[in-house]
Amino acid sequence: MRAVRVTGYHQPLRLDEVPEPVVTGPHDVLVEVGGAGVCRTDLHILEGQWAAKSGVALPYTIGHENAGWVTAVGSAVTNVTEGDKVIMHPLVTCGLCRACRDGDDVHCETSRFPGIDTDGGYAEILKTSARSVVRLDDRLEPADVAALADAGLTAYHAVAKAARRLRAGDRVVMIGAGGLGHIGIQVMAALSPAEIIVVDRNPDAVKLAVGVGARHGVVASGGQVDEVLQLTGGHGAEVVIDFVGEGGSTAEGLRMTRRAGDYHVVGYGENIDVPTIDLISAEINIIGNLVGSYNDLAALMALAAQGRVTLHTAKYALDDFQQAIDDLTAGRVRGRAILVP
Amino acid sequence: MRAVRVTGYHQPLRLDEVPEPVVTGPHDVLVEVGGAGVCRTDLHILEGQWAAKSGVALPYTIGHENAGWVTAVGSAVTNVTEGDKVIMHPLVTCGLCRACRDGDDVHCETSRFPGIDTDGGYAEILKTSARSVVRLDDRLEPADVAALADAGLTAYHAVAKAARRLRAGDRVVMIGAGGLGHIGIQVMAALSPAEIIVVDRNPDAVKLAVGVGARHGVVASGGQVDEVLQLTGGHGAEVVIDFVGEGGSTAEGLRMTRRAGDYHVVGYGENIDVPTIDLISAEINIIGNLVGSYNDLAALMALAAQGRVTLHTAKYALDDFQQAIDDLTAGRVRGRAILVP
Amino acid sequence: MRAVRVTGYHQPLRLDEVPEPVVTGPHDVLVEVGGAGVCRTDLHILEGQWAAKSGVALPYTIGHENAGWVTAVGSAVTNVTEGDKVIMHPLVTCGLCRACRDGDDVHCETSRFPGIDTDGGYAEILKTSARSVVRLDDRLEPADVAALADAGLTAYHAVAKAARRLRAGDRVVMIGAGGLGHIGIQVMAALSPAEIIVVDRNPDAVKLAVGVGARHGVVASGGQVDEVLQLTGGHGAEVVIDFVGEGGSTAEGLRMTRRAGDYHVVGYGENIDVPTIDLISAEINIIGNLVGSYNDLAALMALAAQGRVTLHTAKYALDDFQQAIDDLTAGRVRGRAILVP
Amino acid sequence: MRAVRVTGYHQPLRLDEVPEPVVTGPHDVLVEVGGAGVCRTDLHILEGQWAAKSGVALPYTIGHENAGWVTAVGSAVTNVTEGDKVIMHPLVTCGLCRACRDGDDVHCETSRFPGIDTDGGYAEILKTSARSVVRLDDRLEPADVAALADAGLTAYHAVAKAARRLRAGDRVVMIGAGGLGHIGIQVMAALSPAEIIVVDRNPDAVKLAVGVGARHGVVASGGQVDEVLQLTGGHGAEVVIDFVGEGGSTAEGLRMTRRAGDYHVVGYGENIDVPTIDLISAEINIIGNLVGSYNDLAALMALAAQGRVTLHTAKYALDDFQQAIDDLTAGRVRGRAILVP
Repeated sequence: MRAVRVTGYHQPLRLDEVPEPVVTGPHDVLVEVGGAGVCRTDLHILEGQWAAKSGVALPYTIGHENAGWVTAVGSAVTNVTEGDKVIMHPLVTCGLCRACRDGDDVHCETSRFPGIDTDGGYAEILKTSARSVVRLDDRLEPADVAALADAGLTAYHAVAKAARRLRAGDRVVMIGAGGLGHIGIQVMAALSPAEIIVVDRNPDAVKLAVGVGARHGVVASGGQVDEVLQLTGGHGAEVVIDFVGEGGSTAEGLRMTRRAGDYHVVGYGENIDVPTIDLISAEINIIGNLVGSYNDLAALMALAAQGRVTLHTAKYALDDFQQAIDDLTAGRVRGRAILVP
Repeated sequence: MRAVRVTGYHQPLRLDEVPEPVVTGPHDVLVEVGGAGVCRTDLHILEGQWAAKSGVALPYTIGHENAGWVTAVGSAVTNVTEGDKVIMHPLVTCGLCRACRDGDDVHCETSRFPGIDTDGGYAEILKTSARSVVRLDDRLEPADVAALADAGLTAYHAVAKAARRLRAGDRVVMIGAGGLGHIGIQVMAALSPAEIIVVDRNPDAVKLAVGVGARHGVVASGGQVDEVLQLTGGHGAEVVIDFVGEGGSTAEGLRMTRRAGDYHVVGYGENIDVPTIDLISAEINIIGNLVGSYNDLAALMALAAQGRVTLHTAKYALDDFQQAIDDLTAGRVRGRAILVP
Repeated sequence: MRAVRVTGYHQPLRLDEVPEPVVTGPHDVLVEVGGAGVCRTDLHILEGQWAAKSGVALPYTIGHENAGWVTAVGSAVTNVTEGDKVIMHPLVTCGLCRACRDGDDVHCETSRFPGIDTDGGYAEILKTSARSVVRLDDRLEPADVAALADAGLTAYHAVAKAARRLRAGDRVVMIGAGGLGHIGIQVMAALSPAEIIVVDRNPDAVKLAVGVGARHGVVASGGQVDEVLQLTGGHGAEVVIDFVGEGGSTAEGLRMTRRAGDYHVVGYGENIDVPTIDLISAEINIIGNLVGSYNDLAALMALAAQGRVTLHTAKYALDDFQQAIDDLTAGRVRGRAILVP
Repeated sequence: MRAVRVTGYHQPLRLDEVPEPVVTGPHDVLVEVGGAGVCRTDLHILEGQWAAKSGVALPYTIGHENAGWVTAVGSAVTNVTEGDKVIMHPLVTCGLCRACRDGDDVHCETSRFPGIDTDGGYAEILKTSARSVVRLDDRLEPADVAALADAGLTAYHAVAKAARRLRAGDRVVMIGAGGLGHIGIQVMAALSPAEIIVVDRNPDAVKLAVGVGARHGVVASGGQVDEVLQLTGGHGAEVVIDFVGEGGSTAEGLRMTRRAGDYHVVGYGENIDVPTIDLISAEINIIGNLVGSYNDLAALMALAAQGRVTLHTAKYALDDFQQAIDDLTAGRVRGRAILVP
């Protein structure tokens, strides 16, 4: 079969003919790829930024946001059957460690990450595990949702965690209305009655955000903290979700957080540098967020099936992978680029 | 001032001229009534059903669903000022007992209930406490929301409690799409992404329910349990909220509840009669529900201000109180009857 | 190897020589049995009470409370290795269904139950799954803890759920100080600062209960509801856990429950028959309880290792299985009978 | 009556004869002071550190950790009566704002703080509010518990919040075994079965900590992070509570925190300076902590009544206030200094 592989760092990806994977273990699942997201992380992989961390042996097949159709399953697989449409959770988890047994599989002690440390989805067939496949509703197509598998799932997870404490009448600030933020706003509008205030430097992104569920849009051009305080009666918001995490957003986000409120970190880059007295006197929490669990992905797919979370995609044939990479590098992709093998 | 009073049981209400209440304590609040809900409970009061329970001395002013404008406040009142539009929580609570100190003021050990055991809102002016007044958003008018003060608040409370555990992809069955159920469906659609299944004997009520947020409507005519099981893959729903509580709805509701699910009782009348083995082997919970707290009412008003909870009302001048009572008795009121003094 | 098997209902168990199980799948684990609890359920199995429900094919090996030493593992087993001391969760679960993925594996959609519907632990070697084995601390011995695997786990689960809402100053009533109750009291004393009130008909059981953590003991001889109300200032307890579930305990338990309190059902037999108005006006919850999860068992073993949960056992060689059965039938076992192969 | 007052900053306190307070409002409560804690904050007040923040007008009566006997109550007081033994919550709260209505009275929008911004307890009689008095069990004496009113309550609050997520088998690190930490360890041992690891620079404090409930004591002399990692299987602890908050403890505390764990800040001084990537990749939370609520104080008093939280005190007559101040300044007080008027 055809597969797009990393054969060396600082070199272009290469389309190779490789053997088709086969079922060998009882939990194995083979999936005919119907969509594979082309993500900024893929560019970083080619630059070698993940080489040491992942320890992956070259060559290998890249692509960590995948969806498709099941073509074969191992003997112990009970949750999907041949022909099912599925999306893949980004991690293959053990199901045996304490975190997995708590439903917190993202903290699995021995997980693998297809597309990062083992073969991924820029290929015709992907081999994965029964623990990674979420069945899709009839209304959803693999190529339309593949890009929700990682970035979308991260946004969902943070928002769902944050939404648990929000009531009608509360406010939530979402900093950053780009890829993750755009999904996050849609999820928040579906999960919570809180008033959404979006902050972004880009006026177009702010406008788009207001169209998908935000009540107030704030263009960040210096006065954003004051604007948020004004919109919240001087108190700040019960919850702030920071999808940026750099360029000063962490200090600003904390200033936008109400007494007894939660500041969620999702984006990263800079350090959080905050006096302990500030956290204590206002009793504020700083909440870390990683990607979502398997059941989070199932919930996100339920929202997508209801039409409450949608994503713009630009589709490319597998053979045109280089074009997709080039377009992403050049900033020419609106929404997310998807390879359709 | 004019006030409509109970002067004896099994006798008509009487419009009397009574002295205007005055501020005597530091937490007192006087409210010019802008709307007072006429409720089936008022009919029961006249029939003497509450006489022993409330122990109220006659004559007294009836009316327990009230909203209006603040006209005077005591010296320690910090949450409202003269001229504020407010809705009244049905209870006047102490703020001192353990339940009040937990925010669970509905279980206050020494609460009073205006309109039931002390003077209520079928009057020009109502005397209440700072602990009972919730400020209304500019977008809301007292006469439009007064009827949410008790029935609406009960629905909100049950739904908000139930919604905490619901995720996208879950199902919630709501039995009864009448007064409470109609509000409950709107609240559920605002608070949760779960799929709402409504069950009611009245096809019109079911149709209306689907119009305000239910995904599926089931007309109860014998096969409702099977229909719900079919709509939930044979499993039943994660949550069932029973606004009826009689005529067999409790046994049916429990059969509609999924393993590890919650069955919420809101309506009442019959006994729940269930084998312990059934609760244990499916690990099902039966959750009791009373009216909501002060902060629940504030949240419900936030939903109303956002236009997410609306109510049909039929307005009557205070002098026409008997007409309102007669119309309610005869089943001629669409939505809720409201006295507008 | 030797195994004690059910060869027909209403017939004695039989010690047979059977083939040793072998590892065939990647998650298989073989365990040399170090202790197998002899439980009243085993007597019921012989009477045929479980025949229809379990659908098990005879002959098969009985015994559902097992602990021992790992002797071999499949290729995908990462949580235990040869030589590890382990206790077995009563269920073998799939790890794939939604309940398993939430950490709520007790509600697994395709679980098996060794000793009930497949071969169990009255044998030299038991074949189980990596998902069922919990590693034991060095301080614990299989024969001492085996009987905690099912009855103890059920008590732990109910108590841990109940304890979440209990604060210092609260009261918890535990009805029944027998097998489950005795464990439950020890667990409650370890997990919560609430005052424990124990109710049992047997004065010796009450005395024993006070020795392991109960603050008050109430001998049930007619006035138990009044006694509990007196001990709780007339209010009832925040939480009642009913390990009996018959002989009137459910109605009594509900009367002992405070406003806004939880009544937990663990034992079963009779029906709960309660007016809906009582649940609503006091806003009381009735909470069902099944056996605990895998991680619950791990937590219970941590308590056992700390010496906070202990159990009396009477040990029998595997060959003496009939003596154990006879002693249990005759009520001659103090604590729990354990087969030590 | 006699009262010890601040008459100017950088001047000694002065014992004055002042008028006895009287009941003027319906929620007023007069308390004959039975014990007033002498706290390091009192020294800071005299140095003028609180002058701007509190805005208090001089002269005023100092003392913010108070307990005693009720001598008179206002007309609306239902929770205490004359003669009751009580401890005072440090804040006088409104009972009307949203935070108060949620039971989160510490975040009251209009609270006062006796001894800091209004007259406190270094006096014969203290005037307070019904919302601040917690009735004491017969087994407790005001002078023995007064010092728990502020420092103890802060420790209780953080520990109770942290304990909610702890299960048997989990570990909790407590950094700092001084005033707050010493109380915190006792509270943790009462509320949770988690293994307590104490870290302190002072070997005597560590020894004392192990005596009141810690399982492991770590003397901080450079290798404390490694020692904690070793005690937690290389993972770190599920929860870290930092009662120090300076001298590098925040960075160390975060390194001791397990993936998906909580790091609680209680002590303060330095900045927390942490890369966002670290919080995200391990999904760690930083939890701020302020003093506890009224119901937290009631729960702490329940623990004290059970003998599970005790405190060393050194008692001084009110007239000897200067000796108490001098002893505290010189570090001559073992445990807490208490004025007994």
